[in-house]
Amino acid sequence: MDLKDLIFKSRSFRRFNESYPINLKTLESLVDLARLSPTTGNRQPLKYMLFNTPDICKKVFPSLLWAGYLKDWPGPGEGERPSGYIIILGDKSITDTFGVDHGIAAQSIMLGATDCGLGGCIIASVKREELRAELNIPDNYEILLVLALGKPVENVVIDQIKDSDVKYWRDSEGNHHVPKRSLKELIVSF
Amino acid sequence: MDLKDLIFKSRSFRRFNESYPINLKTLESLVDLARLSPTTGNRQPLKYMLFNTPDICKKVFPSLLWAGYLKDWPGPGEGERPSGYIIILGDKSITDTFGVDHGIAAQSIMLGATDCGLGGCIIASVKREELRAELNIPDNYEILLVLALGKPVENVVIDQIKDSDVKYWRDSEGNHHVPKRSLKELIVSF
Repeated sequence: MDLKDLIFKSRSFRRFNESYPINLKTLESLVDLARLSPTTGNRQPLKYMLFNTPDICKKVFPSLLWAGYLKDWPGPGEGERPSGYIIILGDKSITDTFGVDHGIAAQSIMLGATDCGLGGCIIASVKREELRAELNIPDNYEILLVLALGKPVENVVIDQIKDSDVKYWRDSEGNHHVPKRSLKELIVSF
Repeated sequence: MDLKDLIFKSRSFRRFNESYPINLKTLESLVDLARLSPTTGNRQPLKYMLFNTPDICKKVFPSLLWAGYLKDWPGPGEGERPSGYIIILGDKSITDTFGVDHGIAAQSIMLGATDCGLGGCIIASVKREELRAELNIPDNYEILLVLALGKPVENVVIDQIKDSDVKYWRDSEGNHHVPKRSLKELIVSF
């Protein structure tokens, strides 16, 4: 797929066909994209945990906070939850400062997911100590991001922003609307 | 280009054909990729400054620190410097916390650059106050990253890591070698 199409299609999805299986090899191939992405000083301090079975996905889900602007929606219900996760950890035995390495890695992974027909959401709002305890993550790893993955079952629409209101919202048919600033607003000169 | 190829080709390049012109429209199209990339809470707090003329590129260059591991190489010499820059700013009138938004945006831009035959380097080691003064960047913008862009004239080789030594190096023919950890080393479970 053309890169522009790929980026356009790579929306943040939060509702999935939970019964759709994600192969472990697929998750590994996504981490390989992150492996070959830029990292500060070539330090490569990120490590990855991969999850693709219902049992373990059930352990990850309760630690995630979903869609802050949708006050009446606590997150995807049973049957619509992610069927895979990649947790990005920072290995503190390598460095204490991860810069934006995990942002770069996450974008490579999410584009890769889109490219193989999946979708998902980069989640930074995580109950980290709960998740650490649930998954026995040692203290020398910082929990940086959780990438929720699955087969999306929602329609995401990009709208032009109005009155600087960035809040996404759902219409009566369940379409998820995301207002985006214009290119003109983003490019500045002084 | 296939995403895996694109990521594989999207190396960090530091030597360019400085006379290669980069069209302003090209830079704008790269920012458009960043515009459509994920951003925390859909806040979209990043702004972008675009530079593609020799005069202004000369103003940006002295504030950049290049290739920390190559102690005998102060950065690209005249004729091999970038012919374009995108500076990513954080607009503090929108938020004070930019998370990894700029990492995500930078990766979209660098993949887009590779896709149109360019290359470059994501630079976080920036003399920020010098750059701010040189370009009259107002205080309500945080200087997050400088993306140096151009037509690469160097060969970058990915090597398997040995003895955990992450330092990149140049061989006698000027090839730039970058040791990468194996996929096996990056995937962890507890």
